[in-house]
Amino acid sequence: MNKKNQELVTGDLMKDVASLCKQRGFVFQSSEIYGGLKSAYDYGPLGIELKRNIMNEWWRAMVYEREDVVGLDASIIMHQNVWHASGHLAGFSDPLVDCLISKERFRADKAPRPEPGQELPLECGDKGKAKTYQAMIQERFGVELKRTGKTLVGLKVIDAETIGFFPEDSEEASETFPYRGYVSPLIGSPFLSEERKFNLMFRTSLGPVDPIGEIVEKIHGQNLSREELTNAIEEKINESAVYLRPETAQAMFVQFQNIQRSLSMKVPFGIAQMGKSFRNEVTVEHFIFRSCEFEQMEMEFFVEPGTQKEWLKYWCEQRLSWYQKYMNSPEDVMLRQHDPDELAHYADDCYDVEYKYPWGWDELEGIASRTDYDLKKHAEHSGTSMTYIDNSKPDPEKGKPPYRYTPYVVEPAAGATRTVLMILLDAFRYEEKPRASAKGEVEKRRYLKLHPRLAPYKVAVLPLVKKDGMPEKARELVQKFFNAGINARYDEQNAIGKRYARHDEIGTPFCLTVDGDTLNDGTVTIRDRDTTEQERVPIEEAFGEIQRRLNS
Amino acid sequence: MNKKNQELVTGDLMKDVASLCKQRGFVFQSSEIYGGLKSAYDYGPLGIELKRNIMNEWWRAMVYEREDVVGLDASIIMHQNVWHASGHLAGFSDPLVDCLISKERFRADKAPRPEPGQELPLECGDKGKAKTYQAMIQERFGVELKRTGKTLVGLKVIDAETIGFFPEDSEEASETFPYRGYVSPLIGSPFLSEERKFNLMFRTSLGPVDPIGEIVEKIHGQNLSREELTNAIEEKINESAVYLRPETAQAMFVQFQNIQRSLSMKVPFGIAQMGKSFRNEVTVEHFIFRSCEFEQMEMEFFVEPGTQKEWLKYWCEQRLSWYQKYMNSPEDVMLRQHDPDELAHYADDCYDVEYKYPWGWDELEGIASRTDYDLKKHAEHSGTSMTYIDNSKPDPEKGKPPYRYTPYVVEPAAGATRTVLMILLDAFRYEEKPRASAKGEVEKRRYLKLHPRLAPYKVAVLPLVKKDGMPEKARELVQKFFNAGINARYDEQNAIGKRYARHDEIGTPFCLTVDGDTLNDGTVTIRDRDTTEQERVPIEEAFGEIQRRLNS
Repeated sequence: MNKKNQELVTGDLMKDVASLCKQRGFVFQSSEIYGGLKSAYDYGPLGIELKRNIMNEWWRAMVYEREDVVGLDASIIMHQNVWHASGHLAGFSDPLVDCLISKERFRADKAPRPEPGQELPLECGDKGKAKTYQAMIQERFGVELKRTGKTLVGLKVIDAETIGFFPEDSEEASETFPYRGYVSPLIGSPFLSEERKFNLMFRTSLGPVDPIGEIVEKIHGQNLSREELTNAIEEKINESAVYLRPETAQAMFVQFQNIQRSLSMKVPFGIAQMGKSFRNEVTVEHFIFRSCEFEQMEMEFFVEPGTQKEWLKYWCEQRLSWYQKYMNSPEDVMLRQHDPDELAHYADDCYDVEYKYPWGWDELEGIASRTDYDLKKHAEHSGTSMTYIDNSKPDPEKGKPPYRYTPYVVEPAAGATRTVLMILLDAFRYEEKPRASAKGEVEKRRYLKLHPRLAPYKVAVLPLVKKDGMPEKARELVQKFFNAGINARYDEQNAIGKRYARHDEIGTPFCLTVDGDTLNDGTVTIRDRDTTEQERVPIEEAFGEIQRRLNS
Repeated sequence: MNKKNQELVTGDLMKDVASLCKQRGFVFQSSEIYGGLKSAYDYGPLGIELKRNIMNEWWRAMVYEREDVVGLDASIIMHQNVWHASGHLAGFSDPLVDCLISKERFRADKAPRPEPGQELPLECGDKGKAKTYQAMIQERFGVELKRTGKTLVGLKVIDAETIGFFPEDSEEASETFPYRGYVSPLIGSPFLSEERKFNLMFRTSLGPVDPIGEIVEKIHGQNLSREELTNAIEEKINESAVYLRPETAQAMFVQFQNIQRSLSMKVPFGIAQMGKSFRNEVTVEHFIFRSCEFEQMEMEFFVEPGTQKEWLKYWCEQRLSWYQKYMNSPEDVMLRQHDPDELAHYADDCYDVEYKYPWGWDELEGIASRTDYDLKKHAEHSGTSMTYIDNSKPDPEKGKPPYRYTPYVVEPAAGATRTVLMILLDAFRYEEKPRASAKGEVEKRRYLKLHPRLAPYKVAVLPLVKKDGMPEKARELVQKFFNAGINARYDEQNAIGKRYARHDEIGTPFCLTVDGDTLNDGTVTIRDRDTTEQERVPIEEAFGEIQRRLNS
């Protein structure tokens, strides 16, 4: 592989996509100049257009073109009682454990699980750390592990609940310790703290209060126990606590009555919302796939009890085909039904739309039949009725109208950020082909084969050179596209080949080039991103031709 | 005024707009069923469309149709060093004071300021409170104010620093107290705590940490003083603290290099961002005008030092005319230059775009010439170079290229939420006119005279009745609009008059009605929102006619 080739691709698709994203202004790390904020990303000039296009397409399909779905844009900071009712304050937490040796904190349910009989080498990273950890373990647990380079050896899993220390050449354990079934991911240590629950919601404080001042007033000079201190601090913090929403969904339940009444919506109907959600994830992974700040596209579809299964089926089909419409490889998405033991306690059925990511099939969207759980919980906690009255239908028990019930809910909940990643992975292409102009040479290029509706720019208009009236002609064309609401880009920087390469890499479907011939015979070239083929057309037909190709 | 009239308007424009907003699904209070979250609002089905349209128009004018501005969509949670550099952590705070009597907490700089010679009656709200407060004041300050109903009297401002207690019929003060120059807004009390600074940023905690557990570990059994406790708690909280952005602007400075390089942007150029910002405002007021969660549309325009004044002028003109384009009363917006003592310390000039709100002229957008303050601060704090190299221009000192400098910045920073409010206020109409169909009767209606580009729906298509093939014909028409990317609404609920009234109130410019004649002679009626006039046109011309009217 020559240097130029190495620069374009590594062969690791995730790396290649992330690298293109940074180079071409799709995605940057948040606060990068300050060392970067783990797990938050900024969308650059191209990324924001791709994300906007994806979200606008969702909105068009889910809200604009449907009579039965309306939109909502609720606040991110919501009342804490919303999360008491939804169960997020009690249940929305991961089990966390500290490694007593390396101090790493990790999710117990995602940690490596060595089986009985397996050795437990501690991989310490470097020699210095290995020495430190060796001494710590000897001091705290009374066994001297053997050090070979940066690894400490001598521990082995005996059974599901016991590990043993086996001194050199010994077949028998000289010491045993309790085993929790997993080790710390970083160094593989079985010396661990107890599991603690860690709420994934971000908590902050609303209103003109100074919780620290109030805490100090409350605890100063009281000589409190650890537990009393914890309770006193928790109590003061909770008084003004509000949470950043961990999902957009709850707002649709909270505003169910306001929306149903103000627009006289008739069941079945849906409320859709797009926007940011926040989860203090311990494990952030796979670039933008799992981050603490992310974007969702969720819809709650309210239906008559008993009809939820058919609506679930309907929405599964709708949503799967929505993704496929924009993909080059529609076979890379599928529906997977949840196993009964995978279902959330409130759901009576659930499907995931999964995509074949480079690390395997994983979630893109969840489509859950949530029963009447949410509306009932909010009715209970708020004292507000969440029932719906259908005057045209008989009550099944009384045999005559009205039929009053709490609607069931089917929820297609898509990850907007994940869809951006999926679309980038699906569109990324690298190809080599013989250069037409020079025999024996190979032309290499990366490009994004984006659906025209998702491409940041639909067409680039390029004057061959910055003179002879070409910029003026090109700008006239750009204006024509703007007037038609088509996002075009005028681009005069660098040689024409570099400009084609740039627009290939950001997925611009077509380039229109204004050159010397344009001024002579009134024609321009249309270059196709996918075939790289060029065709001359009269300039007055260029606009119509691009429109035709974009729509085909 | 008859009952129907009373229902439609009160004459108080703010109240009338807020009431229409709730009734028609534009704006609801956040978490309303839980008593509502002060100072956060949810945008309902109509409100979100109006807001989206406004923000899309801004994006179109500022990004799409300009070669020199690109977009950004940065994370809301940013690294705490961003706010150290920007000065928000040190300076972004209001002076707060507690009323020692009513316990109200308020902003000192916004409190009423009675002048020397004025009496200071304490308005306690009700008799019971007046008695309680009377006793509190006697106990704490040793004077017995006279109670008349719910008011306590006897205090008077003597001079700028003193108030006195004047017993009944006495010309001389029997006691004096220090005066701070203002009283509490709620009851008018001069008995106040010291002023404290209160940071307006929302703080939360990022990462797998439990600040409370760590605080307890640190302070338990230490017998610390108040100050030591405060410092210990602050220190532990700060270790994992991150902040919700109080403005979208800083991200454009933080990502300046990434964007300039990945898109090879040449100064002058701009970076634009729209999105939510968060300020823990003590005073929330005027409906959505000032709330804790709000939306901004900001652009940082980077220019060569020395050219900032002409760019400031340019952007002032651009921005003012942008608003006027969408307004019925363009004379209700104006530019106001800041007085020198009003300028932020980093600005060398600044204009506000102000609107004539019902409470007076107030801010809609600020357009500041921010010098190179921000880029230099971030360069200093991050150690990253924020200079720009212009190879085509000579360095003014060396006399030859390259010219390396830190760009100056002109920032048009608009409030998206405030623009929504302004547009609603500008569009709200109430009118009475003789009913054409019944002599002597008066027809009353409210409507929103929204610019067609901002109206949530551009056209409503209404079958006169839900039978005789009318719904099918109407839905065919709706589909035609969808295919052209025009947001249409099919609406068959209630009598036709009610539907017209509904679409008047949500600002739909045109209604197309399919009726009996449509099936006979192939014509439909077009009804104009502003004139209420109806016109019959052949159905095949309806689409084109609406398009023509929308664009005119």
